[in-house]
Amino acid sequence: MSELRWDPLKLHWVIIATERGRRPRDFQSEPEPLPVTSCPFCYGNEDKTPPEIFAIRPSGMPNTPNWKVRVIPNKYPALRIEGELENRGHGPYDVMNGIGAHEVIIETPDHDKSMADLAPAELTDVLVTWRTRLLDLRRDFRFRYMILFKNHGARAGASLAHSHSQLIAVPMLPPVATTELKVCRTHYANKERCLFCDLITFELEQGVRVVREFSNFVTLAPYAASFPFELRLYPKRHSHDFALMNDAQLAELAVALKDMLMRVKLVLKDAPYNFILHTCPPMHKRPGKPAMWTSLEYDYHWHIELVPRLTSIAGFEWGTGFFINPTSPEDAALFLREAEV
Amino acid sequence: MSELRWDPLKLHWVIIATERGRRPRDFQSEPEPLPVTSCPFCYGNEDKTPPEIFAIRPSGMPNTPNWKVRVIPNKYPALRIEGELENRGHGPYDVMNGIGAHEVIIETPDHDKSMADLAPAELTDVLVTWRTRLLDLRRDFRFRYMILFKNHGARAGASLAHSHSQLIAVPMLPPVATTELKVCRTHYANKERCLFCDLITFELEQGVRVVREFSNFVTLAPYAASFPFELRLYPKRHSHDFALMNDAQLAELAVALKDMLMRVKLVLKDAPYNFILHTCPPMHKRPGKPAMWTSLEYDYHWHIELVPRLTSIAGFEWGTGFFINPTSPEDAALFLREAEV
Repeated sequence: MSELRWDPLKLHWVIIATERGRRPRDFQSEPEPLPVTSCPFCYGNEDKTPPEIFAIRPSGMPNTPNWKVRVIPNKYPALRIEGELENRGHGPYDVMNGIGAHEVIIETPDHDKSMADLAPAELTDVLVTWRTRLLDLRRDFRFRYMILFKNHGARAGASLAHSHSQLIAVPMLPPVATTELKVCRTHYANKERCLFCDLITFELEQGVRVVREFSNFVTLAPYAASFPFELRLYPKRHSHDFALMNDAQLAELAVALKDMLMRVKLVLKDAPYNFILHTCPPMHKRPGKPAMWTSLEYDYHWHIELVPRLTSIAGFEWGTGFFINPTSPEDAALFLREAEV
Repeated sequence: MSELRWDPLKLHWVIIATERGRRPRDFQSEPEPLPVTSCPFCYGNEDKTPPEIFAIRPSGMPNTPNWKVRVIPNKYPALRIEGELENRGHGPYDVMNGIGAHEVIIETPDHDKSMADLAPAELTDVLVTWRTRLLDLRRDFRFRYMILFKNHGARAGASLAHSHSQLIAVPMLPPVATTELKVCRTHYANKERCLFCDLITFELEQGVRVVREFSNFVTLAPYAASFPFELRLYPKRHSHDFALMNDAQLAELAVALKDMLMRVKLVLKDAPYNFILHTCPPMHKRPGKPAMWTSLEYDYHWHIELVPRLTSIAGFEWGTGFFINPTSPEDAALFLREAEV
């Protein structure tokens, strides 16, 4: 059973994933890329993964081929779904048992296609699957937040090359989400406007950091990007929850997401990247506990954040929480805007 | 001129190092290791670096060989020393010019020695140099904080193999330091005890996370380590400021630091690592501005934090601020404690 431990100096939780139990020699070598025949995410190898949770499959039985998108539990989960939450002190520390969910969304049966290569209709299936899984996990009152993310490339943390994203449900609100939600709430309380809407309006006026604008979405390089070629993809109209997007909206988002991934692939020569979906946390309350967040409809704004892994986080970044970005967001936007996709 | 930009959503400053101005192709390839003859940190190549700021050199002129430790300005500084601080708004954002200092401490003339290989007396010279440079930079009222750190190995961000550490002075307190100082202040206000002293006492009683104890120092794996084999080196007796250590204390610290680095080298097969010195910020106030921190003598406790770079920070960590550590601190301490150094 994993443990969540509270760092009393940095004020954050750490997941000690003892089931992975990695010893010194486990870190010595890079994992070998798997041949297609033994890839657990390919057709015919469905029995090499835990039984599927969800799939888009025009016909046929679960855990057989012919699916378009397939969702499975992570074989080596950071957090486990079984059990009750326990939250207790330990001397000067705090510890919680590692309850959560850790799912893998296999985005395509094609071993050699990256997410950028998927057709908009295929990408729409992936987005519909994200929405389905988010809505389902929100029904579990133990979970305070769901993080949907993708690691593309070994240097970005992908342990398997076959294109996939991941969904982790955690029993408490993570620090990044807490800060964002608090900042938005304060801004709304002061101004009765969404902070993200204000920033998007300013960016569309300025133009220099805009990479591509669609009818309902915009891709831009954030003003204070922590990393070179960092990007955000926003819905232009206010919307606090990705899971409320209808199929037509997801179809347009698929086009915008593909455009963003294609530009990154082209300009940065298929650099490794991470992207993260930031959406509002579930609004439910735990039985016997107060709700942490209610009525975020007005103050929060969902978005996708993409970070190409071009530089490494070194001593300065880890030790300070400051970031040094050697490419200005205006230059990054220019390079990406001019790419011919 | 670099710029410091405020991220209004994540509430941190980012250094946009426009002078480095890295374009897409600059990220394509790993830097080639330099041959010794052209290494700017080797004897005889002193003219390949900016003129030295400080050196421990038994005899001879500045910028000539025969030094033991040599300090130079970084040739590609993240922040520049010249100019006045300007802090202004820009639409919904905030921006400051990139004033600061960025120094490189060349720890040994020997190109092939890592820091772990240095004799305790050689390491003491490095520590004395750190103290000298910290005290000198504190005289500049523009700087709010100094971060002293080391990147060992290319994967940990070292761009040159020749052993060196870096010292960056920044015009505002970084988020990691702010949190730590606030937490310590609150703990002291409530309990009239140093939080670090409390944690060290508990750890020495428990023993399971202690790697090595010396008369006045202790190396341990923190209870909520964010990374596998993460370590802290603490003075056992309360001390808020590294720069107040006398020569005898630095000589004992050199032995403890070498012991920590040797264990990491041995057990993790010379894994890349970062370490960071956390010490109290300068206590001065800027002319015309209030002091940010005063009288930290009782609440803060300096220490060195070491993070081996065994795992990569991926989408989950960046997107949440949570960390997944696949090796428990108790296991890490056991492996390191049993290493025969």
